[in-house]
Amino acid sequence: MDKIVELQKYLQTNNYDAALITTPDNVFYVSNFKSNPHERLLGVMVFKDAPPLLICPQMEVPDARQAGWPYEAISHLDTDNPWEVLNNAITSRGITLSSLAIEKSHLTVERLEALQQLYPQANFIRLDDKINEMRVIKDDVELEKMRQAAKLADYAIEVGCKEIAEGKTELEILTAIENAIKEKGYTMSFETMVLSGPKTASPHGTPGSRKIQKGDMILFDLGVIYDGYCSDITRTVAFGEPSEEQKSIYHAVRAANENAINAVKPGIRAMDLDKIARDTITHAGFGEYFTHRLGHGLGISVHEFPSVTGTNEMELLPGMVFTIEPGVYKEGVTGVRIEDDVVVTTNGVEVLTKFTKELLVL
Amino acid sequence: MDKIVELQKYLQTNNYDAALITTPDNVFYVSNFKSNPHERLLGVMVFKDAPPLLICPQMEVPDARQAGWPYEAISHLDTDNPWEVLNNAITSRGITLSSLAIEKSHLTVERLEALQQLYPQANFIRLDDKINEMRVIKDDVELEKMRQAAKLADYAIEVGCKEIAEGKTELEILTAIENAIKEKGYTMSFETMVLSGPKTASPHGTPGSRKIQKGDMILFDLGVIYDGYCSDITRTVAFGEPSEEQKSIYHAVRAANENAINAVKPGIRAMDLDKIARDTITHAGFGEYFTHRLGHGLGISVHEFPSVTGTNEMELLPGMVFTIEPGVYKEGVTGVRIEDDVVVTTNGVEVLTKFTKELLVL
Repeated sequence: MDKIVELQKYLQTNNYDAALITTPDNVFYVSNFKSNPHERLLGVMVFKDAPPLLICPQMEVPDARQAGWPYEAISHLDTDNPWEVLNNAITSRGITLSSLAIEKSHLTVERLEALQQLYPQANFIRLDDKINEMRVIKDDVELEKMRQAAKLADYAIEVGCKEIAEGKTELEILTAIENAIKEKGYTMSFETMVLSGPKTASPHGTPGSRKIQKGDMILFDLGVIYDGYCSDITRTVAFGEPSEEQKSIYHAVRAANENAINAVKPGIRAMDLDKIARDTITHAGFGEYFTHRLGHGLGISVHEFPSVTGTNEMELLPGMVFTIEPGVYKEGVTGVRIEDDVVVTTNGVEVLTKFTKELLVL
Repeated sequence: MDKIVELQKYLQTNNYDAALITTPDNVFYVSNFKSNPHERLLGVMVFKDAPPLLICPQMEVPDARQAGWPYEAISHLDTDNPWEVLNNAITSRGITLSSLAIEKSHLTVERLEALQQLYPQANFIRLDDKINEMRVIKDDVELEKMRQAAKLADYAIEVGCKEIAEGKTELEILTAIENAIKEKGYTMSFETMVLSGPKTASPHGTPGSRKIQKGDMILFDLGVIYDGYCSDITRTVAFGEPSEEQKSIYHAVRAANENAINAVKPGIRAMDLDKIARDTITHAGFGEYFTHRLGHGLGISVHEFPSVTGTNEMELLPGMVFTIEPGVYKEGVTGVRIEDDVVVTTNGVEVLTKFTKELLVL
């Protein structure tokens, strides 16, 4: 329970009475208990000077125990007011709350108002940055899980490439990929994307019953969860010989991906990487078609810190994991995106996803 | 755009300047544009006396247009401050905001603080109840979509039953179900659950590589999305002859399901239905193992209003759609849950899910 201890130190240093963690991914991070509570209350409360407690729906207590939660677990039924249950547990310990750190980027206004009713005098502090600061640096155990997650993503792309054939639909290929991962006992980290032909030009398109035909480019964007940690990879391949302009786009995107990756090292800023990739694509003449940020942090969540945008001045540090995913979406020609997962090491970069970036013509 | 008009009337009646809708499902409800913006800002702003506007990431504007959004759409890049973009659009129309209705059960504290910075004098009102009140009554177009979604759920259960065979894993059966739905061009409304043997006794278990064996009971919980609307069904079947206690549990749960359904009519309260089902199970001797509410509303979201709990005094009205899903989870014996989707009609009930509730011994 290192993470609980670190949070207690943070509370002591700042003299805050407690922290309430309610984001399911953050609850997993500090407790190893992964659960989607829907609209029900799930939270870990960490106290400055007392052991933490978990609050969850009653039916989930056994799962929390199995996940290894060793401290008090209090539970509520659908007919309870969960805030009263929480408050009773706190007051029965003789704890009063005059300052409470909350996740302002997750906690709803409604829940804040419930807490304000219970603790009208309390000061509510933003906890998000502290947890993000902890989560953004992956330790060796986490990195090993992410290597395994990336390896599974590589495998999924390999399966997808093998499945490509004239007349197959995007959804058929997608299903084959997901089955291959399920057969290994894993689940995808987000909705798998298989887009073909003109549909590649929409960066957030939806796979459907469009049939693959010769001359299509095909874009795969997918990820796999390994022991709670996500991978996220994109590859774009050609089915039949691509046109000259399609090739130019592919090579521009690939160069942007590789130039950015080669620049990764401790101390470089997120925005510098975005600029390197964007300049590469702009010099190739496709700048106006690269319409999103270069990448996003990756870990327990598919999107976490650091965000790799043109305005993020954050200096990158060893242990940070993020995607590098330049893309060009030119309607009437093609979309191409090439995405890798990378870790900042003490002296450079480790690329977790290893599937080839040569332009595959299948 | 009936829903926009209804919201404008609500603003006029209450003399609120505007409403900001940010829940993706509510954005879909009022705009027909379905999108998962992740951490990016997606919203529909409805004004008392001016046409509404949509704010979304730039790359999603074409999708919003294709979904039929006929009003102004403003967009932001990852490098923009989306709140400034929104504020510029509002002020350029000459609109000042002194009262703004927000979705307090969805909007985060962080976003509220951003709005408070832009409009420090504004009063923030709770919009949730108005939208819930609109969404909770389904019109004929919505009901027809839900009938189709339920029909697909029945079909998915049928596929699951046919797939059951000695030595097959839960995940293999799950995959066959999901493939059958994908082949028809539809997606599941939540993570499909296939649990077998002792795992049925966990109401929120995770399907895995456990192999089906004779003597198992098998629980399916799944749903399908049809044109934005969800179904949600649970059936529990036996693989080989069940024990006497397993049969008793099954019959208690089935009687609870049917007694509650038969009581559905306009004017009955949600809590009355919960009590009817709970009493049935208690009289059969399994009351302590029915650990969750009877059901939940269903529509664009898998969980929406009305919640069917022992404390919800809401009187049910024609057009409300919800699940009836009593369950008994007795460790060492079995779990059984039987769930249907029902609509309150003008004089009773229509059951959307039609798969048999006879105890199937496969």
